[in-house]
Amino acid sequence: MEQAFFKDEKSHKGLLIVISGPSGSGKGTVLSRVFERRTGLFYSVSATTRAPRPGEINGQHYYFLTREEFEEKIKAGGMLEYAQYCGNYYGTPRRAVEEKRAGGLDVVLEIEVQGAALVKKACPDCVTIFIAPPSKEELERRLRGRGTEDDEVIKKRLETAVSEIEHAFDYDYIVVNDEVEKAAEKIDSIITAEKCRSSKYKGL
Amino acid sequence: MEQAFFKDEKSHKGLLIVISGPSGSGKGTVLSRVFERRTGLFYSVSATTRAPRPGEINGQHYYFLTREEFEEKIKAGGMLEYAQYCGNYYGTPRRAVEEKRAGGLDVVLEIEVQGAALVKKACPDCVTIFIAPPSKEELERRLRGRGTEDDEVIKKRLETAVSEIEHAFDYDYIVVNDEVEKAAEKIDSIITAEKCRSSKYKGL
Repeated sequence: MEQAFFKDEKSHKGLLIVISGPSGSGKGTVLSRVFERRTGLFYSVSATTRAPRPGEINGQHYYFLTREEFEEKIKAGGMLEYAQYCGNYYGTPRRAVEEKRAGGLDVVLEIEVQGAALVKKACPDCVTIFIAPPSKEELERRLRGRGTEDDEVIKKRLETAVSEIEHAFDYDYIVVNDEVEKAAEKIDSIITAEKCRSSKYKGL
Repeated sequence: MEQAFFKDEKSHKGLLIVISGPSGSGKGTVLSRVFERRTGLFYSVSATTRAPRPGEINGQHYYFLTREEFEEKIKAGGMLEYAQYCGNYYGTPRRAVEEKRAGGLDVVLEIEVQGAALVKKACPDCVTIFIAPPSKEELERRLRGRGTEDDEVIKKRLETAVSEIEHAFDYDYIVVNDEVEKAAEKIDSIITAEKCRSSKYKGL
């Protein structure tokens, strides 16, 4: 057995990576590429009390809970963060996050701006990344490109996106998604870099 | 002209990257690979009052200055940091660092532990990376592998290296060099990640 100077990387606790991005940021596509690029990631599935939409699978898109189940979980400290939107609860189950991190996996939370702020408070060692569209015009093109929404809906989405982008500076990192592959590479690099932080090597 | 949400990356100020590593860490080889892997890096050449050794070129290995020239530069605020070892001055000329950063280049300072601490004080926005050998045994093998030194010299070098490694936690990042290519990739990722810090995107 050789006398290592630092704790073996394999024994490090996994990162908690919090990712936000407005509608039109291309967050979903970028994240898929990040999961293809690197191993050791675990995608945290949120819980909600809203009804499943057609095609949504329990445990994959969301954990679908009753209001009673959700509130029990809150009382038992089982939610890392939660909030209500349009009369429904949304939240991050704590247990999976903690178990996967303890096992060395890097946990990815895809979450909106308010939830991200709550996670940062609960877990100050988390790494927060904001994925942004490159410009207002490109954002509008992307939102229109879907071709399914009328002008009023697009205008509303654009406004919401712009107001979310104002929170970008509260995040540790900003990744401007002008090209999916480049944006995925940046997130990949951020994860690699954060695993090299000197604090991670403390203790033998 | 599209309405960008954030300052264009090309207009960001370059990073100041401070890299230390003891004799036997393989720092030189790793750094060479980093310079091959990415563009936009500028290697800062130190200044010294010691005499050039055979083969050393002024402006490439060091800027060789007289004692008077060096002290004038100190007085004029021209040194980012400096120290004396064995009766000679060693230091980092400030001007090149600031000009290259202003031009968007990422400046790399290869510097020992005391100098790195001084640079961190003078430029708190610098990024500090410590390159470490994986284990005491591997360090000794590397130092012996050169085959040029006697036991006493190697013992002394090993002691110095071990005492330097104790400062690793003062750095932002630790890169354990067990494989050159992996270590270079980590440093490459750290630079990419640091360029994504939200603070870099402030101001339009």
